[in-house]
Amino acid sequence: MNPELTEFMRACQARVEAALEARLPPATRVPERLHQAMRYSVLGGGKRLRPLLTYAAGSALQLPPESLDGPACAVEFIHVYSLIHDDLPAMDDDDLRRGKPTCHKAFDEATAILAGDALQALAFQVLVQDPGLRIPAERRLAMVETLAVASGSQGMVGGQAIDLAAVGKSLDLPSLEHMHIRKTGALIRASVKLAALAAPDVPDRALEQLDHYAKCIGLAFQIKDDILDEVSDTETLGKTQGKDRHHNKPNYPALLGLSGAQEKARELHDAALASLSDFGAEADLLRGLSRFIIERAR
Amino acid sequence: MNPELTEFMRACQARVEAALEARLPPATRVPERLHQAMRYSVLGGGKRLRPLLTYAAGSALQLPPESLDGPACAVEFIHVYSLIHDDLPAMDDDDLRRGKPTCHKAFDEATAILAGDALQALAFQVLVQDPGLRIPAERRLAMVETLAVASGSQGMVGGQAIDLAAVGKSLDLPSLEHMHIRKTGALIRASVKLAALAAPDVPDRALEQLDHYAKCIGLAFQIKDDILDEVSDTETLGKTQGKDRHHNKPNYPALLGLSGAQEKARELHDAALASLSDFGAEADLLRGLSRFIIERAR
Repeated sequence: MNPELTEFMRACQARVEAALEARLPPATRVPERLHQAMRYSVLGGGKRLRPLLTYAAGSALQLPPESLDGPACAVEFIHVYSLIHDDLPAMDDDDLRRGKPTCHKAFDEATAILAGDALQALAFQVLVQDPGLRIPAERRLAMVETLAVASGSQGMVGGQAIDLAAVGKSLDLPSLEHMHIRKTGALIRASVKLAALAAPDVPDRALEQLDHYAKCIGLAFQIKDDILDEVSDTETLGKTQGKDRHHNKPNYPALLGLSGAQEKARELHDAALASLSDFGAEADLLRGLSRFIIERAR
Repeated sequence: MNPELTEFMRACQARVEAALEARLPPATRVPERLHQAMRYSVLGGGKRLRPLLTYAAGSALQLPPESLDGPACAVEFIHVYSLIHDDLPAMDDDDLRRGKPTCHKAFDEATAILAGDALQALAFQVLVQDPGLRIPAERRLAMVETLAVASGSQGMVGGQAIDLAAVGKSLDLPSLEHMHIRKTGALIRASVKLAALAAPDVPDRALEQLDHYAKCIGLAFQIKDDILDEVSDTETLGKTQGKDRHHNKPNYPALLGLSGAQEKARELHDAALASLSDFGAEADLLRGLSRFIIERAR
């Protein structure tokens, strides 16, 4: 990985950790256990891929990072709430997440359900209240709309529902793609789109290019996730390895073979780079993140 | 109950049913099972108290009902999502809601969790997208903020967390009130406040009076709920009777006695009426709803 990208990722991860911390209710505030569970699940872990994409897209549009803290935190709150609920016994029933016990293991199921619910509400609250955003109210509303649609039954939650319905079934490639475009793709696209909405003025063409980039890397991310689930180990991943096979879930390596899946991820990376061809060096972080997504080890 | 209020309630319930139906994804849209679960839980049941309050507050401010459909649906979506999650086995573990099997009984737990999650996102989406609202973007943002804060860890979800933590403990009256002000009170207040935000211009004093009204009836509603849980029967309630006693939950009749609790509800009704003393006949629906809340049989 090039040193500039490494430094950007390190700086962003530290920045978003502080921004998330500042936006979460203190652990000492009533109801303490709920707030502790929210903080436990949000803080101190994860690649922060979605915030990284928000900051990198902001950098491509030459935005100051202060204007991106709110949107970056909002997408991460949505992402973490979805992880908490996905890990519940009634869903994927997982004990390990980001290298530590899942929320319902560290606390209890009821607290985990409520912590997820409260994080979703907090995401929208943060978008509305964030003082770093200097944009007209219409743009802020467009952010709320983008996040709500990406999170809902036509986006992330819908993808999760399709995923659950697919357990034990064989999906063909278009159906698998359809599921992932919603389950992980929708929020990844929103992460990039929120950055564009934070900018004072972005030409439609640039918006479309950034969105196409996000669509490609969203799918590449999921393919790489499937590959890692197959070839990595639990300690490296920080979450249970081999889940797809264990739950008899359709995935890319099962459909395309390992090398076919790797090839497909590589093609999507190339397509992502191609959509940025009108951008100069200001989009290098986005290019680097696309490479990181398909080359990462966890 | 006076005939005008009966007619208002009947008309509003029909109106909000149609408005909710129009804003829910069709049952035939992918993922079908998720959308069916959302529709199953939202449609065809409930007193629709929160939408009634939104329309009645709008009537006190002489707003056309078209401008209130979006806010009324948004608060009802939040309310229904909270019922779905509260009924889950890890929470109150209830089989019956609004006279029919709870969402996780009619579908399954995973679908119920996701249906609740999707309804929360839909609430915010509806507030942003609603075409009937003719207000500046700033007011719409204030609506999103009001709903997010009322729903989150300092509002409804926070109240539910305090409630769970109180199972088997004895709470004193201030603590019980503190819990209910969040658990049911926050969203009831939001129902009234959203109507005020839908109005072109409401003097601060009127806003405060309406908010005080909402605060009083929110608590009165909960006290009456506790009384009904004690004295009614499952068939009339449409949900399991005697839950508080069964789960060893603190409630008003346990603390104040039945007649003490009834007296307290009556005092809150009087206080609610007093806060409307500057209003004329245009607030009669709000007055009638306050009476309905403490006199209802279910």
